[in-house]
Amino acid sequence: MPENEPQDALTSEVTYRPIGVIRTPFSEVAGMPVQSAGAIGIGGRIELDPALVEGLADLDGMSHLILLYHLHRVGPVKLTVHSFFDDRPHGLFATRSPARPVPIGLSVVRLVAMDGPTLEIEDVDMLDGTPLLDMKPYVPPLDDRPGARIGWYEGRLGDPSAVRSDDRFSGPR
Amino acid sequence: MPENEPQDALTSEVTYRPIGVIRTPFSEVAGMPVQSAGAIGIGGRIELDPALVEGLADLDGMSHLILLYHLHRVGPVKLTVHSFFDDRPHGLFATRSPARPVPIGLSVVRLVAMDGPTLEIEDVDMLDGTPLLDMKPYVPPLDDRPGARIGWYEGRLGDPSAVRSDDRFSGPR
Repeated sequence: MPENEPQDALTSEVTYRPIGVIRTPFSEVAGMPVQSAGAIGIGGRIELDPALVEGLADLDGMSHLILLYHLHRVGPVKLTVHSFFDDRPHGLFATRSPARPVPIGLSVVRLVAMDGPTLEIEDVDMLDGTPLLDMKPYVPPLDDRPGARIGWYEGRLGDPSAVRSDDRFSGPR
Repeated sequence: MPENEPQDALTSEVTYRPIGVIRTPFSEVAGMPVQSAGAIGIGGRIELDPALVEGLADLDGMSHLILLYHLHRVGPVKLTVHSFFDDRPHGLFATRSPARPVPIGLSVVRLVAMDGPTLEIEDVDMLDGTPLLDMKPYVPPLDDRPGARIGWYEGRLGDPSAVRSDDRFSGPR
């Protein structure tokens, strides 16, 4: 069967080796920010695999990075969840709940400084020790969709920095 | 050693089972769009694992989704690459090249319609049969950073729909 048949996509697992680790002030889930937009100014750093340092060239002049990372402490997946932003339940894929079938987190963080394999960043909303899977330049003309409609989120976001996590999505899977 | 120690993060692989497959008009890499912002209006669909349909509740009213997917046809990783947007070479992590150490693609697509586990979408820039890892609601107040500086991309994006792929990043790893 050709590699790109849908049957194959659903049955073949993919395996990744993290490219680094994210260090943050957060060793516990309770009380941490729930989105990078709610963590503005909170400092952390990326410790990249030193073998990959060559790939950091030309990041200077970029103010923000998209981080993709493995949510290593989330609990069992529930397909209907209570988001931190609403009291009513919602379908998992209509939320940013971390307890997803494939637990990959996405955060846009500020790049502050670089020194070899170490990147100083701000706006961190992940646990200390989080395995980093990928980092991409954040490029608004490619990534933004002005005027996008946001469904149930409309009117419920308020100030994201006022929202803090509890342990509803954490624990052993 | 605690699970969140950096040494552990760099040596422990993560394994994911895709949640569905993305169907698009593109069976070959050459000539396809290189970004969803350069694929506006190109139709495709998501075939979600039927066991996960409950998680789609409350997506109605949302115009755009963030898709994370496994780039299943990319070739060997090079840490210095030639982006489709520039003639000069750049560090891999300062580009959106698909041939990354952890080959996860990110696209913001338009949600057009839903019918059970099938989602009609537009703005697709991935190969037909691409394994879908995650889908998240795109929420501008959480995801956008107006005024972000984009380094070498500045002045080089032009009309992304005028840029088409060749096979420079594809092939067996």
